[in-house]
Amino acid sequence: MATGKINVSVENIFPLIKKFLYSDHEIFLRELISNATDATLKLRHLTSIGEAKIEYGDPQIEVKVDKENKKLHVLDQGIGMTSTEVKKYINEVAFSGAEEFLDKYKDSGKDAGIIGHFGLGFYSAFMVADKVEIITKSYKDEPAAHWSCDGSPEFTLKKGNKESHGTEIILHIAEDSTEFLEESRIRELLRKYNKFMPIPIKFGTRTETLPKPEGAKEEDPAPTQEVDDIINNPNPAWTKKPASLKEEDYKGFYRELYPMQFEEPLFHIHLNVDYPFNLTGILYFPKLTTDLNIQKDRIQLYQNQVFVTDNVEGIVPEFLTMLRGVIDSPDIPLNVSRSYLQADGAVKKISSYITRKVADKLSSIFKKDREDFEKKWNDIKIVIEYGMLSEEKFFEKADKFALYPTVDGNYFTFEELQEKIKDLQTDKDDKLVVLYASDKEAQHSYIEAAKAKGYEVLLMDSPIVSHLMQKLETSKEKLSFARVDADNLDNLIKKEDTQISKLSDEEKEKLKGNLEEVIDDKSYTVQLEAMDSDAAPFMITEPEFMRRMKEMQQTGGGGMFGMGNMPEMYNLIVNTNHELVSEILNTKTAKKRERLINQSIDLARLSKGLLKGEELTRFIKRSYEMVK
Amino acid sequence: MATGKINVSVENIFPLIKKFLYSDHEIFLRELISNATDATLKLRHLTSIGEAKIEYGDPQIEVKVDKENKKLHVLDQGIGMTSTEVKKYINEVAFSGAEEFLDKYKDSGKDAGIIGHFGLGFYSAFMVADKVEIITKSYKDEPAAHWSCDGSPEFTLKKGNKESHGTEIILHIAEDSTEFLEESRIRELLRKYNKFMPIPIKFGTRTETLPKPEGAKEEDPAPTQEVDDIINNPNPAWTKKPASLKEEDYKGFYRELYPMQFEEPLFHIHLNVDYPFNLTGILYFPKLTTDLNIQKDRIQLYQNQVFVTDNVEGIVPEFLTMLRGVIDSPDIPLNVSRSYLQADGAVKKISSYITRKVADKLSSIFKKDREDFEKKWNDIKIVIEYGMLSEEKFFEKADKFALYPTVDGNYFTFEELQEKIKDLQTDKDDKLVVLYASDKEAQHSYIEAAKAKGYEVLLMDSPIVSHLMQKLETSKEKLSFARVDADNLDNLIKKEDTQISKLSDEEKEKLKGNLEEVIDDKSYTVQLEAMDSDAAPFMITEPEFMRRMKEMQQTGGGGMFGMGNMPEMYNLIVNTNHELVSEILNTKTAKKRERLINQSIDLARLSKGLLKGEELTRFIKRSYEMVK
Repeated sequence: MATGKINVSVENIFPLIKKFLYSDHEIFLRELISNATDATLKLRHLTSIGEAKIEYGDPQIEVKVDKENKKLHVLDQGIGMTSTEVKKYINEVAFSGAEEFLDKYKDSGKDAGIIGHFGLGFYSAFMVADKVEIITKSYKDEPAAHWSCDGSPEFTLKKGNKESHGTEIILHIAEDSTEFLEESRIRELLRKYNKFMPIPIKFGTRTETLPKPEGAKEEDPAPTQEVDDIINNPNPAWTKKPASLKEEDYKGFYRELYPMQFEEPLFHIHLNVDYPFNLTGILYFPKLTTDLNIQKDRIQLYQNQVFVTDNVEGIVPEFLTMLRGVIDSPDIPLNVSRSYLQADGAVKKISSYITRKVADKLSSIFKKDREDFEKKWNDIKIVIEYGMLSEEKFFEKADKFALYPTVDGNYFTFEELQEKIKDLQTDKDDKLVVLYASDKEAQHSYIEAAKAKGYEVLLMDSPIVSHLMQKLETSKEKLSFARVDADNLDNLIKKEDTQISKLSDEEKEKLKGNLEEVIDDKSYTVQLEAMDSDAAPFMITEPEFMRRMKEMQQTGGGGMFGMGNMPEMYNLIVNTNHELVSEILNTKTAKKRERLINQSIDLARLSKGLLKGEELTRFIKRSYEMVK
Repeated sequence: MATGKINVSVENIFPLIKKFLYSDHEIFLRELISNATDATLKLRHLTSIGEAKIEYGDPQIEVKVDKENKKLHVLDQGIGMTSTEVKKYINEVAFSGAEEFLDKYKDSGKDAGIIGHFGLGFYSAFMVADKVEIITKSYKDEPAAHWSCDGSPEFTLKKGNKESHGTEIILHIAEDSTEFLEESRIRELLRKYNKFMPIPIKFGTRTETLPKPEGAKEEDPAPTQEVDDIINNPNPAWTKKPASLKEEDYKGFYRELYPMQFEEPLFHIHLNVDYPFNLTGILYFPKLTTDLNIQKDRIQLYQNQVFVTDNVEGIVPEFLTMLRGVIDSPDIPLNVSRSYLQADGAVKKISSYITRKVADKLSSIFKKDREDFEKKWNDIKIVIEYGMLSEEKFFEKADKFALYPTVDGNYFTFEELQEKIKDLQTDKDDKLVVLYASDKEAQHSYIEAAKAKGYEVLLMDSPIVSHLMQKLETSKEKLSFARVDADNLDNLIKKEDTQISKLSDEEKEKLKGNLEEVIDDKSYTVQLEAMDSDAAPFMITEPEFMRRMKEMQQTGGGGMFGMGNMPEMYNLIVNTNHELVSEILNTKTAKKRERLINQSIDLARLSKGLLKGEELTRFIKRSYEMVK
């Protein structure tokens, strides 16, 4: 038996870095700027504890494109390296300087803000460059070093020419990566990954117009000056204390995050926790449309102010992925499978913390400014309703502030609604029947009929509302929802007292025969009802259960298998107490009776939105005749 | 100045492999099975050229889960390794055995089917295992070797206990990766990545029922036997010659690819080219709905039968990402940025080859079986129309076979349409006016009016149709499209002859006054027209240009900025030659006139789908009164 040490074949490491290190080559710039930030923060730490005897000053990072010579420069004014350190940190691939640094200084201040893992991150430069140089001078009183490597494992190291402490990395961009010599591309990358990094990043200059000096003539041009173009905001709102920020600051930060977004957010939630996990961030409720699909991937995930991804699936509960904003946490494991992520304890805690904070914020707005909450309800309901369906804990909290608007624009909580309607809308089996409409326009005549009886009609128009009603019916007792066009109102809310029909049983039989003679469409079931004499003479209804099951199937999940494809089934309700119905019964000539019935049914179908195409054209033609 | 060799720090390589090698840990299994396949194909090659003096036989790969002992085994019957080879290939991380093998045997058969890059792929095992063993015996007459390593760079190597050639890899699954001890998870991965790999992969066994022996009694149970459960199809359809496959084979392969898909594909396109790039594959046209968004990511990309990704953005032209199927090409660079991919010469050629093949296939179906092509048109039009809009080359070809269906279900090519309608539908400025409807039901009365004049009406109902019409109008001369409800037909197709109005100019003035007194809605512009006396008396129209610009804005791109939010503008066309209009003019009492005008306008609005909600309820109530 032999033992030995695995040898990493150096000859092949560069091609491999190029191929495997990151699937996206553009990451190299993020890595280099992380290293530069790291080196600067290290210096800040060392000066703060008195280890480095120099002035920390006001350091910045600079990125320069030299298109002509195919070079990209990244400069920092940080800690720098001595020759010995270059040998140690650079020549040994995969040696992480940051870890060692943290180990050494771990007692002198918990969070020195270290980002990068110097070593492998640096080597990502070889994904886009065929030669890389480092010119670096340590804060210690030692000469500068100049390292260079052409991508083979051979490097050269000589004395460098640099007076001030810090590091300059020079990338000789490879043929297949010339995109990284375009100023616009680099600017795009800096904005994507480094927009909120903690050290100012300079990328070129821009011209600023100055005020004219006193006494200048009108025709004199205003003086200008070149100023550094700082690409980032080193102190983004989420890193600040909530108490130090005003409403305007949150709105301003939203515009910083989404410059192309013209609409203001409805409100924000500032996340800030450091035990048992570290998480900061600001979430915004944008105005949401009812389209569930296109609004994800808007929350950005950062780690110590470095952009990581805009896919927060598994970290944020699904119903909150419709929000916008920023989450910054070093405690979220990256590069792991989604299933591992979802099983991770810290991530589970983060997810439920976020859910709780969102619920608490909504609850507090509801309590503090009910009117404002009502105004925003329509834009936020989809998140809340979706959350109530998918997270039981959220349901319990949201049940107190979720609103149920009526078609007349009043907003009730469930408890208020119950109180308001219980007298009139409790049926003979002691069940509370909540009436609703899904479309104020299309169901207008049915809504009017319900209102005429003193009933409240809710407007429930979000796409998942059938699931929510199902959920409410099962979690609360003796409750049922019915759409206003589901049946005759007296059937929807059954009371003890029965209406008396003007027609005798024989007359009813005769009427039914007359109707069925004319109606050849088998999808209508005739149903005679003794209703108020001023209610509509004819009415088409669509039973609640079937319709809701179909809807649930169509919006995914729930319902009963196969229901989505069932044909629509309607009832034709005939009001036996209406004058017109008596007239039909008393009409002797079959032809005239048929005309009366047909025109009546057409009007009932029109009211339910079922009269279309050729039938509608014929109806209109017939009606023009009648106008004359 | 010093020079030296960069040293890859071995101590840190394992944590790094775990962290960086692949963002998705599940990839390890694909890598190990690629290596196993590789080793088996190498043996096939060596036996075929007489280098290995053994029987190739019928080798398979086996995957076994040993949940109790937390182990996962991958076994192959391939080339195996001697101790010396283990030292060389395994102990040197990043040494690619496959490359060396290819170099050595490159003259003895171009494509020995080598997949993996042994070396780094193997080390991906450490992403999920904290100890890995290799037991291997070479096809050469040498003792077996047993290598094991616990994730530190220390390994042990001793004589192994194995009689037959091949390799067994044993993974001691780590605590954080126990998901890979679940049979269902492993089966899922095998199906995802290895479904079509060229060597049979056994994963457990399944019970097969055998026919009863002759003379068995009815109550005797049928005999059963355990057979190997082979997870993959080593010879998927796309690797075969098109000539050897029947229609049924293509349909069968579609079911293999999409087992959850019940609908059959409409037709397939077999891709097969080996110069100047290597590409095989089969694309299918599925039945498409009109929703453009949810149908992407269905084409799977393979490299030498190993699944790589289902994101083919940048490789396949965007309009074809709605198709389904498989593309297999070793010539597509992976792990590069999308922008690099799109600039890559080979990828550009692949993309235009695919476009051409799709256009040719469509053209050949069109020519060979016009009837079948027409039947499928509705399901494929969205791809073709989108392609015509986005790829000029595709437009040129598709212009010959793209179909324009009429509301009566006839299908014309553009040329046929032109021929058919040019006599009646060329206006006085020699411009061909194509009439269309977007909804047969909603625009029924307008369609009828156009048909009454002998005009053809197309049914153009796909979501991007306004863009397509814009494109056709600019690429063909003297052509314009007009929706049937855009104006009075005599205005849409202006002829030399003018209709004579029954009304004098004074009468017209008076009528206009009457109408404007009643109509308070400023969004209707009254327009008096001398039409046929049996055309509708009142009609509401919506000008083509405004409406189309709005639609184009809503479906993204094109149109004019801000138009999407413009209010709808309508014209009220009054037929001065209609009896009812004369009657209005001659009605003396203002009240009666008002009633006539209101009822007429309501009917016109109903016909255009504009009478809704409260107005519709009032109209219906009024109409019930009139029925009586």
